[in-house]
Amino acid sequence: MPELPPLALIPAIDIIGTFVFAISGTLTAADKKLDPFGASVIAFATALGGGTVRDLLLNLRPVWIQEERLLITVFISVLITLLFRKEIGRFRKTMFLFDTVGIALFTILGMEKALRLGVPPLIALVMGVVTAVFGGVVRDILCNEIPLIFRREIYATACLVGGAGYLLMRLAPVPPGVPVWVAVGIIILIRVLAVRLKWAFPNLKSEE
Amino acid sequence: MPELPPLALIPAIDIIGTFVFAISGTLTAADKKLDPFGASVIAFATALGGGTVRDLLLNLRPVWIQEERLLITVFISVLITLLFRKEIGRFRKTMFLFDTVGIALFTILGMEKALRLGVPPLIALVMGVVTAVFGGVVRDILCNEIPLIFRREIYATACLVGGAGYLLMRLAPVPPGVPVWVAVGIIILIRVLAVRLKWAFPNLKSEE
Amino acid sequence: MPELPPLALIPAIDIIGTFVFAISGTLTAADKKLDPFGASVIAFATALGGGTVRDLLLNLRPVWIQEERLLITVFISVLITLLFRKEIGRFRKTMFLFDTVGIALFTILGMEKALRLGVPPLIALVMGVVTAVFGGVVRDILCNEIPLIFRREIYATACLVGGAGYLLMRLAPVPPGVPVWVAVGIIILIRVLAVRLKWAFPNLKSEE
Repeated sequence: MPELPPLALIPAIDIIGTFVFAISGTLTAADKKLDPFGASVIAFATALGGGTVRDLLLNLRPVWIQEERLLITVFISVLITLLFRKEIGRFRKTMFLFDTVGIALFTILGMEKALRLGVPPLIALVMGVVTAVFGGVVRDILCNEIPLIFRREIYATACLVGGAGYLLMRLAPVPPGVPVWVAVGIIILIRVLAVRLKWAFPNLKSEE
Repeated sequence: MPELPPLALIPAIDIIGTFVFAISGTLTAADKKLDPFGASVIAFATALGGGTVRDLLLNLRPVWIQEERLLITVFISVLITLLFRKEIGRFRKTMFLFDTVGIALFTILGMEKALRLGVPPLIALVMGVVTAVFGGVVRDILCNEIPLIFRREIYATACLVGGAGYLLMRLAPVPPGVPVWVAVGIIILIRVLAVRLKWAFPNLKSEE
Repeated sequence: MPELPPLALIPAIDIIGTFVFAISGTLTAADKKLDPFGASVIAFATALGGGTVRDLLLNLRPVWIQEERLLITVFISVLITLLFRKEIGRFRKTMFLFDTVGIALFTILGMEKALRLGVPPLIALVMGVVTAVFGGVVRDILCNEIPLIFRREIYATACLVGGAGYLLMRLAPVPPGVPVWVAVGIIILIRVLAVRLKWAFPNLKSEE
């Protein structure tokens, strides 16, 4: 059985994820009636904020500081989104799918990066989830909202479960490459089911 | 006279502080009607946010990245708090005392860490206060509130005064160990008196 | 033709910028009815937040951690502002000019710092803009507002255009020193014209 390619070899995986997340950031900024500069910052934060927080915590220089292509990707994404907003609105389902694949891949990429630096597994799991979902947290803080993922839906939890599965499979005698794709599949499956079946954690209640 | 033990030797001092601050974060998240995932993030930010900001500023990898026990402590604290919220509500006074001892100890621990890295004394004082109170600031930003400590009560100020006393005593010919405990005592005393006697800075007034 | 002095040689350029930005932070805090401690934190964030974010992204220890004079400058600025608020209100035009010169100089200083670390030009441009305007972003987040510069006026854009001009001029055969002053001039000119002629980007509209 041939070895499956590691995630990092998928061409332009980070570019695609950045592009899609930047679209979602631009749409949020437009809803908030920001100007094009504000929209660019929000798009940037949504797309690259998760990886940036992860890299700061790991005491690394964020990837987008070294290479211009991620920044340029965000800029092109903002431009296209502002020009074709109506058309993009029609593809909400496709967008949802891209977003779901995006958080799945980013979770595992983030975990792998942390694990290779010698970070303990449980912390690496947290780093993976941070990579996937903290862009949205930074976006919501900049837009003066309580981060959406703190209140609604199975989103970060899908990443947590898939990431935990990844850690377990790495200990098991499965062929290399298998854990990555099974974990990515788990995350996508949970997320899709959660939206279809309206799964959500109950919100906590105030005691007062 | 035997040397008093340095703070770092008190067994599990960081674990206890993390546990108590995580309780307070979980209660805040419940008041905001977040879900259990959101509550965990808020608890984490409250408990470990101050030390994380300090370590990022000092260009270090935060302690909780290296060791899993702090993260696990937060998780257990969230679980217990969600299960026993009513009971915990009855111990508000005990909680206040723990919190007060917590900020006192964290102020001095944070200062010591900075001083050992060769940071100038005044900046080390700021690092100590950041360690003690910035968890609450991060919590309030995530919950979309103006940080409480910017508006009310003698809280950070108690840390500032105690920390300044610590710096002065280190220059004086007092036995080692004494400055730590006197400074911790000053912080606790100011904080308790401030709450008892309702000390507070006057709020600034808008000129408009 | 004698070489013009590099920016870093202008005596106390960082002190003056810090002082002026801290005044603006203190006034904002007063409008929000914070207490003096809160005002100090907001003043600090406004004055040193931009450079701090830049240094964290570049994986450096922020300058104010190494030297106490920037912190002391903020403190003196807060004190003076709280004592003489009415008088300072009369100098809004002078304040505007100082602020404009401040963002112009900080843009180029921030870019130079990044370029010398081997950061690609486009990213260095972003670092320059971050240095100049992110203090205001941090201030607005702490005050629970959507950052002003995301919604209004040509502010960050002036820095972007001037910074881009600086990058182009560095490639051209102009005498050293010229690019700095031309770029600073461009930023000031755009900003002043934008305010005089009420230039602003149109805000985006919600599709809903």
